[in-house]
Amino acid sequence: MIATRVTEIFGIRYPIVQGGMIWVSGWRLAAAVAKAGALGLIGAGSMTPDLLREHIRKIKKEGIEGVWGVNLPIFFQYAEEMAQIVLEEKVRVVFTSGGSPRKYISRFKERGIKVAHVTATPELAVKCEEAGVDAVVVEGFEAGGHNGRDELTTMVLVPQSVDAVKIPVIAAGGIFDGRGMAAALAMGASGVQIGTRFAATRESSAHENFKRMMLEASPTDTFLILRKLIPARVIKNAWYERVVEAEKRGAGEEELLRIIGEKRTKMGMFDGDLVEGELQIGQAAGAIRDLPAAGEVVNAIARDCEQIMAEMPGRLLRNQ
Amino acid sequence: MIATRVTEIFGIRYPIVQGGMIWVSGWRLAAAVAKAGALGLIGAGSMTPDLLREHIRKIKKEGIEGVWGVNLPIFFQYAEEMAQIVLEEKVRVVFTSGGSPRKYISRFKERGIKVAHVTATPELAVKCEEAGVDAVVVEGFEAGGHNGRDELTTMVLVPQSVDAVKIPVIAAGGIFDGRGMAAALAMGASGVQIGTRFAATRESSAHENFKRMMLEASPTDTFLILRKLIPARVIKNAWYERVVEAEKRGAGEEELLRIIGEKRTKMGMFDGDLVEGELQIGQAAGAIRDLPAAGEVVNAIARDCEQIMAEMPGRLLRNQ
Repeated sequence: MIATRVTEIFGIRYPIVQGGMIWVSGWRLAAAVAKAGALGLIGAGSMTPDLLREHIRKIKKEGIEGVWGVNLPIFFQYAEEMAQIVLEEKVRVVFTSGGSPRKYISRFKERGIKVAHVTATPELAVKCEEAGVDAVVVEGFEAGGHNGRDELTTMVLVPQSVDAVKIPVIAAGGIFDGRGMAAALAMGASGVQIGTRFAATRESSAHENFKRMMLEASPTDTFLILRKLIPARVIKNAWYERVVEAEKRGAGEEELLRIIGEKRTKMGMFDGDLVEGELQIGQAAGAIRDLPAAGEVVNAIARDCEQIMAEMPGRLLRNQ
Repeated sequence: MIATRVTEIFGIRYPIVQGGMIWVSGWRLAAAVAKAGALGLIGAGSMTPDLLREHIRKIKKEGIEGVWGVNLPIFFQYAEEMAQIVLEEKVRVVFTSGGSPRKYISRFKERGIKVAHVTATPELAVKCEEAGVDAVVVEGFEAGGHNGRDELTTMVLVPQSVDAVKIPVIAAGGIFDGRGMAAALAMGASGVQIGTRFAATRESSAHENFKRMMLEASPTDTFLILRKLIPARVIKNAWYERVVEAEKRGAGEEELLRIIGEKRTKMGMFDGDLVEGELQIGQAAGAIRDLPAAGEVVNAIARDCEQIMAEMPGRLLRNQ
C-alpha cells in the first residue's frame, strides 16, 4: 500500500491517476481504472456537452465503488457548459487543463468537488496553488497530446515543482510502469498521472488500428509538432510528415491550420485512419508491447512500484 | 554507500560521473570531482590536442587518489589525434560521444582502458553494447549542449535502455540532486552523469558571468535550438533570439551557420559574453541557486540519494 496526500484527498487506493485523454478515455476506461483503485478520468476534450453527460450517467449507472472524475480543458469551446454539467451531475473530482483554472475553482470547491489542474512549469504550479486547487499535475515534454511551450521534462519539472508548492504534486509525462512511478515518488511527487499506457488497454476507446500502431511504435516514433500553434506530441505518419515539411520551410499559422484541417484527431485516434489522422500519444508508446485490461495496468504498476520502493535500501548494496 | 556495476567497473566510490563539457570541465573540475569519490572527466571537445595533453599532465601531477578520465567527441576534428594522446598518456577511462565509438573501442580496450559511450536512444544503446563498451550513458532531451535528434527524455530513455542492454546504464539529462539520482536508480540505472550542476561549481572553468547567469536562470530559461543542424540546449539570450527568429521563418542551413559564426561557445561560456555568446547548459540550470565546491556537490548528491533510498519503504506509508 502506498499512502500519500493524493490517495487521501481523492479517496483512492493507489496514487495513480488515469489521464483524461481525447477520444481514448470515455466512461469505460474511467470505470475500469476506478474499479482497480486508481482515479479514472473521463476526457471531456473530444466530447459535446450532451455526450459528456451521457458518459457521466453511464459511469454512475455502473455503481462502482471506485473514484472517477472528469478532465475539463478550460480553453475548450464547451468549457462553461460542461462545468455546469459537472455541477448538475454532482461529479466529485475534476481535473482542469489548458488555461487558468481560476474561473472555475470557487464554483467547484464550494460544492465540495476535489480539483486538480494540469500544468507544465513550476511557476504555473505556484499559480495553481494560489488559485486554490487541491493538487497540481505537472506534465513533462514527453507526454502525449497538447504540451507546454517551455518543453520542460518530467525529470526537471517534478523536483522543482515540489520545491515551489505546498500542495501535492502529481507527476505526468513518460511514466508507463512501476519504475517510473517509483522514480516520481523518489523525486517527491505524491502521485502519478499516466496517459499513454492507459490508451493502450482493452477499455480504451482508441481505434483498434491506433492501438496496434502503439504496440508497434519504436521509442523514437513520436515527435512534438505544431510548436508555433499549440504543440502536440503525435506518432509519426504521412500526415505528420506533411506538417514537419511545412514547419521546416517556415510555413505560417494559416498554412499550418489548413494542413491540420478539421476533425484530424478523430480521424486518426477514433476512426483509425493511420495515414491521414492525427495520432496524439506520448513518448512512452515506444515501451508498450501489450493491450491488457486497464485494471491489470493499475495493479501491475502499483505492485511493481511498491516492490521497487521496498527494495530500494537493498539496492544501495546490490550490484544493479 | 551505493555499490553498483558502475562503481565496480570504474573503481569509484559513488556511481556519479561528472559530464565532460566544453569550456567548463578542465583538469581542475575533473580533479575536484575525482577527489570526492566520483568520476571526473576532462572535456576534450573545446581543446586543441596540445591543450588536452597539458590538462592530462596537470591532473596527473596532482597525484590524486580518485578516478578521472577524458570525454572524447568522436565527430571532433581532433578525435584521431586525441585518441593517440589518450593512449600515450595512459588515461584509464574514456567516455566517447557524438558518433559511433566502434572505431576506437578495440584500441582503447586492448590497453585496458574502461570505455563508456554517450547516446540518446535505446536502439543506439544496443549498438554501443555490440561495439563492446563497458557502460552506456543515455542522455535525455533536458541535457545541456548537443542533444539527440529524437528528443527522448531521461524518463523514457532510462527504463527502455535498461531493458534493451545487459551492460550498465548511466542516466544523464536533468539530474541535479539526490532526488534525481534516486529516481534514476529506481528506474534501473547503475549510475548518473551530471553536467549542469557541475558547471556551476567553483572549480568549473565557466566564466564568472556565465556562472552568475546559471544562478539567475528560471526553470524555463533554456531551450533547444538548431534542430536542423546539430541540436543544442542553451540559455536564452540576445544571440539565441536571433537564432530562434531565423528558425521560425524557415532559414536554411547556410544562414543558420552564418548566425552561429565562429567560436560562439567560447565567446559565451569561457569569455563571458552573455549577449552574443552561445551558452550551452541543461534545463537543470533553473534549479541551481549556489556555487559550491565540486566535492561538496558530489557529497551532497550521494548523501541525499542514500537517504532517499533508505527511506523509500517508509514513504510507502508516509503522507508525501
